[in-house]
Amino acid sequence: MKSNFADRLLDAIDRKRNPSVIGLDTDVSRVPPRLVEEARARRGDGHEAAAESMLGFNKAVIDAIRDIVPAVKLQSAFYERHGPSGQEAFLRTAEHAKSRGLVVIGDVKRGDIGSTSAAYADAYLGPFELFGRMQEAYGLDAVTVNPYMGSDGVKPFIESAAGSGRGVFVLVRTSNPSASEIQDLVSGKRKVYEAVAGLVDGWGSGLVGERGYSPVGAVVGATCPKEAEILRRRMPRAIFLVPGYGAQGGTAADIAPCFAKDGRGALVHSARAVIFAYEKSVKPEDFTEAARTAAIRMRDEICASLKAAGKLPW
Amino acid sequence: MKSNFADRLLDAIDRKRNPSVIGLDTDVSRVPPRLVEEARARRGDGHEAAAESMLGFNKAVIDAIRDIVPAVKLQSAFYERHGPSGQEAFLRTAEHAKSRGLVVIGDVKRGDIGSTSAAYADAYLGPFELFGRMQEAYGLDAVTVNPYMGSDGVKPFIESAAGSGRGVFVLVRTSNPSASEIQDLVSGKRKVYEAVAGLVDGWGSGLVGERGYSPVGAVVGATCPKEAEILRRRMPRAIFLVPGYGAQGGTAADIAPCFAKDGRGALVHSARAVIFAYEKSVKPEDFTEAARTAAIRMRDEICASLKAAGKLPW
Repeated sequence: MKSNFADRLLDAIDRKRNPSVIGLDTDVSRVPPRLVEEARARRGDGHEAAAESMLGFNKAVIDAIRDIVPAVKLQSAFYERHGPSGQEAFLRTAEHAKSRGLVVIGDVKRGDIGSTSAAYADAYLGPFELFGRMQEAYGLDAVTVNPYMGSDGVKPFIESAAGSGRGVFVLVRTSNPSASEIQDLVSGKRKVYEAVAGLVDGWGSGLVGERGYSPVGAVVGATCPKEAEILRRRMPRAIFLVPGYGAQGGTAADIAPCFAKDGRGALVHSARAVIFAYEKSVKPEDFTEAARTAAIRMRDEICASLKAAGKLPW
Repeated sequence: MKSNFADRLLDAIDRKRNPSVIGLDTDVSRVPPRLVEEARARRGDGHEAAAESMLGFNKAVIDAIRDIVPAVKLQSAFYERHGPSGQEAFLRTAEHAKSRGLVVIGDVKRGDIGSTSAAYADAYLGPFELFGRMQEAYGLDAVTVNPYMGSDGVKPFIESAAGSGRGVFVLVRTSNPSASEIQDLVSGKRKVYEAVAGLVDGWGSGLVGERGYSPVGAVVGATCPKEAEILRRRMPRAIFLVPGYGAQGGTAADIAPCFAKDGRGALVHSARAVIFAYEKSVKPEDFTEAARTAAIRMRDEICASLKAAGKLPW
């Protein structure tokens, strides 16, 4: 395993010729009814059944897309919603994805300070010393981090990540309408999110890998391509995690500015439009086939967009 | 149970004559060795033993301070650090505290958008509909929320809280040194944290309870009393959750400006200086007695400070 997360992620993207990541935002109310009914028959009408059906769904989706995509992203909220049973499904999903050779990103958006941030880093990155030996809890490849508390909050994550070949993606500019309320406030000649971008660039500066990127990435919403151009220049060493493709209204054309001139440096995210594609399928029982078809279509649309922008690297 | 969280919390503070909250930041490396060794003997050298010792410690501390303090705050990071077993200890700790009549705040600092924020609110506040009936996951009284993504990220928490007699505390100004990197950026005539304060005031405006406060509170660090004065005026309806007392360098004198003229509207937080007080005790085996003594001293210091400021309400 390469010791720099950015190198490892970029290699995985090249192997699949696909700069996209599929989000396992597994809302149990959208898991195919057959899986849910089977789990309820075995586990009752509580969180255990919800968690079991989510895990079964995730494993099947992962197996259906494992040769198409380089990475999956788990949206923690949908697992936390089912208490410790849900967290167990989160853990087992991550283990399954790793066993299939996928890079696993935890979308946890954590952020605190000092030893508390360090405890979060232990939880999701790690390993850390417990009872005299190095142990992991969730052991993911990377997590998303919220920067509102400043360097004190982010650095413990970066130290843990850099020490174990893992990565972080710091929220810089998100794709939701009200993101502007704080992120777009103008201070001096720059907006708040540009100030955050400057911090992200600094945090990654000493950690650049063989391929020119650092393990300190940035979440940059795809609904604002002009902002993406500015941010691409301001964070030349950061891999962008780009949400907003598909369900949130971003299109393939919007995402090209998130990539560097050589077509690298970004990972485009879609979740529900892929994993729940079966809902719009003529054969809704084939949820794995529908997810696979949607993942292939997404890859092809992104690559076509990069080609049109003169950025396709393969 | 009163339907407004602010009314319920202020009543609990009045009953104990103590506007403080003890943080269960239960870092297993600081749990008394006897508890840890017993758990390891039963459960081995992994996360299960860590979680079991933390739960045992928490229950004993809660029982020792239950008649002194109105509330406890669980720092989620130290539980997540031990995976699903840790989350189980978090859940059981919360249940134990509730059974002892304490208000339970989850310091989770979550924040996302739309249906994802709603899923986090389901997880920690709730209840929500699952398999045709209303169920809870962690069922806490309140949680901390990160505002970086704006109203889209916070409103699902507020809707869940308002609908179930629960509350949120939005990060406004934190007490760590690098908080200034983002929170103190000046935009127009105000700083970023003042803009967030304006949002918090607006979010709570339609939800004010019988005692004049809303269930939308604010996290305001105690290391900056001048800022506290400004923020007290800007958010007259918000209960302040004030970290930074004790271990983080805030003193009793710093916290008076966080309170309104009538001595209400704030809840002062301390964690490690109380729950790990046994480390500095002459009889370290008596960790419950040390925690109780520290909790009483903290209460008395805060009340003396309020009295000196002419704000003691009892």
